[in-house]
Amino acid sequence: MVKAKKYVVTSRFKGMPKLEDFNVVEEELPPLKDGEVLVKTEWISVDPYLRTYNPHISLPYDQFGNQIGEVLESKNDNYPVGTKVVSHKGWRDYSVFNPNDSTDQLDRAYKLPDLQGLSESLGIGAVGMPGATAYFGFLEICKPKAGETVVVTGAAGAVGSIVGQIAKIKGCKVIGFAGSDDKVQWLEKDLGFDKAINYKTADVLKELKQAAPKGIDCYFDNVGGELSSIIISLMNLYGRVSVCGMISSYNSDSGQSPKGTLVQPSIVFNQLKIEGFVVARWVSEWPDAFNELVQWIKNGKLKAKEHVTEGFDRLFDAFVGMLAGDNFGKAVVKV
Amino acid sequence: MVKAKKYVVTSRFKGMPKLEDFNVVEEELPPLKDGEVLVKTEWISVDPYLRTYNPHISLPYDQFGNQIGEVLESKNDNYPVGTKVVSHKGWRDYSVFNPNDSTDQLDRAYKLPDLQGLSESLGIGAVGMPGATAYFGFLEICKPKAGETVVVTGAAGAVGSIVGQIAKIKGCKVIGFAGSDDKVQWLEKDLGFDKAINYKTADVLKELKQAAPKGIDCYFDNVGGELSSIIISLMNLYGRVSVCGMISSYNSDSGQSPKGTLVQPSIVFNQLKIEGFVVARWVSEWPDAFNELVQWIKNGKLKAKEHVTEGFDRLFDAFVGMLAGDNFGKAVVKV
Repeated sequence: MVKAKKYVVTSRFKGMPKLEDFNVVEEELPPLKDGEVLVKTEWISVDPYLRTYNPHISLPYDQFGNQIGEVLESKNDNYPVGTKVVSHKGWRDYSVFNPNDSTDQLDRAYKLPDLQGLSESLGIGAVGMPGATAYFGFLEICKPKAGETVVVTGAAGAVGSIVGQIAKIKGCKVIGFAGSDDKVQWLEKDLGFDKAINYKTADVLKELKQAAPKGIDCYFDNVGGELSSIIISLMNLYGRVSVCGMISSYNSDSGQSPKGTLVQPSIVFNQLKIEGFVVARWVSEWPDAFNELVQWIKNGKLKAKEHVTEGFDRLFDAFVGMLAGDNFGKAVVKV
Repeated sequence: MVKAKKYVVTSRFKGMPKLEDFNVVEEELPPLKDGEVLVKTEWISVDPYLRTYNPHISLPYDQFGNQIGEVLESKNDNYPVGTKVVSHKGWRDYSVFNPNDSTDQLDRAYKLPDLQGLSESLGIGAVGMPGATAYFGFLEICKPKAGETVVVTGAAGAVGSIVGQIAKIKGCKVIGFAGSDDKVQWLEKDLGFDKAINYKTADVLKELKQAAPKGIDCYFDNVGGELSSIIISLMNLYGRVSVCGMISSYNSDSGQSPKGTLVQPSIVFNQLKIEGFVVARWVSEWPDAFNELVQWIKNGKLKAKEHVTEGFDRLFDAFVGMLAGDNFGKAVVKV
């Protein structure tokens, strides 16, 4: 009989989540039924959407999220002992489940892709859901062409940092927004962004006009809010906006949507297309994207930086750190 | 030598345009050059975009706009005397121009389509630019399917009233927003809208939820602003928004874009697509649309109501009346 520890969310987050919003609980795992596996967690992902979904789920709930683990016991021939599994079982150290059961696309499990010697943690990062989000959300919705100007917000985050690098691979000019001078340095010096701007200190409109003298063709929007309104106001005819997230409103009260400058005039005059997406839409194509992402990382075209926090006990710290913007690249926890 | 009268705009509009913002000027028209025609104006269109473009054009300028006239003299074999011509020559009673010259798509001229006995004034309404706007903006961007729920704002206007009726022709459930109880009555009783709502007096969120219990699939947006934010918050997965106009901000100061509730959460969670357009995009396909619109009108599926003001001297009144929402359907001036 295996005992598992898990984080249970017991409160609606108000602003930044607090430690008291979570209970760490021990539970005995049941014996395996046919088709099930026992998985020992190795890596857990902390992502902005864990915050976003909080107001919409009945309390209490087990904190979900992507994780990677190894099969210790198996009653599933497709997942023998030793198999590495990516699942959405979240903040827990052991779990029992049937990888073939999926109540929805987000909740499904799959074998860790062949990472060709790269760190397995990338399976919840650049070669996992965040990587797929960047890949499909940017390429399928923005449909960038070489020579076009691309803007990315949340550019130093797990998704944004990959979007910007994919845009460079596709021959675009890339401008990124991030929240500190260190991140700006990192984006320009290490990741090859043509320009990065600290949105907290810059005169955004002025610097963006200088950085994008030919206007903006594609915008990958991780933040929403006033920054997005300014960026959209500088877009060119037939510009495309891929709306991935809304960090600017994650910590606001669920009942009150934030207000901002409306962008209808730009949408009409420049015939812009603005589309939101959830990456599960392309789930059948993820394996192809993972292959290409692995190749890009191996041949040095894509840097998959990780911000690693060690210890199951430090999941909460890693989560609020990520929400506060401490991470460069993908925030993961090594269990 | 023909003398022409024309309206010249001499001021930036502040809020609602004022009579003093215009000068009525007489000018002598030049003799015809090869390719040119002399046209006597019969119908002039007043449209919301005349207001919108004002802050963006150098002063003074001749008030542009669609009009229909008859060729009185011709040095163009394609446009013999008696030909009816649709042009963008605006608020003037006579004009000389070469119909083959077009500085841009908006400015081009073309022969009045065959209206099969319908009023020629429809050539600047349901079988003109407003009709094409409704036809392409709705069908090409919203791509409505039978059984879907469609919302239209500015529903009693020249474009909105046609969009709603096309949606009915396509088998959709149609909900329209308008600014008076009389308009609401007209939309429901005469045009066959399933539901119309007076946005000035209704509890919009509550009434819209009741009218659209299955959510909203398509939204044709003529207004922007807070009303649009509420509508978008009730949209279904993969909903489509066609952004045609922004009446709510037409009369605001050019330097200050209005603020409103941001809709990023809906865009992301429901994977919405929001696209703006200018109808010139489909100009090569207008003739096919005009054919279909004429058929719909002739067989009673589409009612093309017009709000006619008589007299060249009353163009200003017709314009501000339209901006104030006096018109049911298309506002036109009979010269």
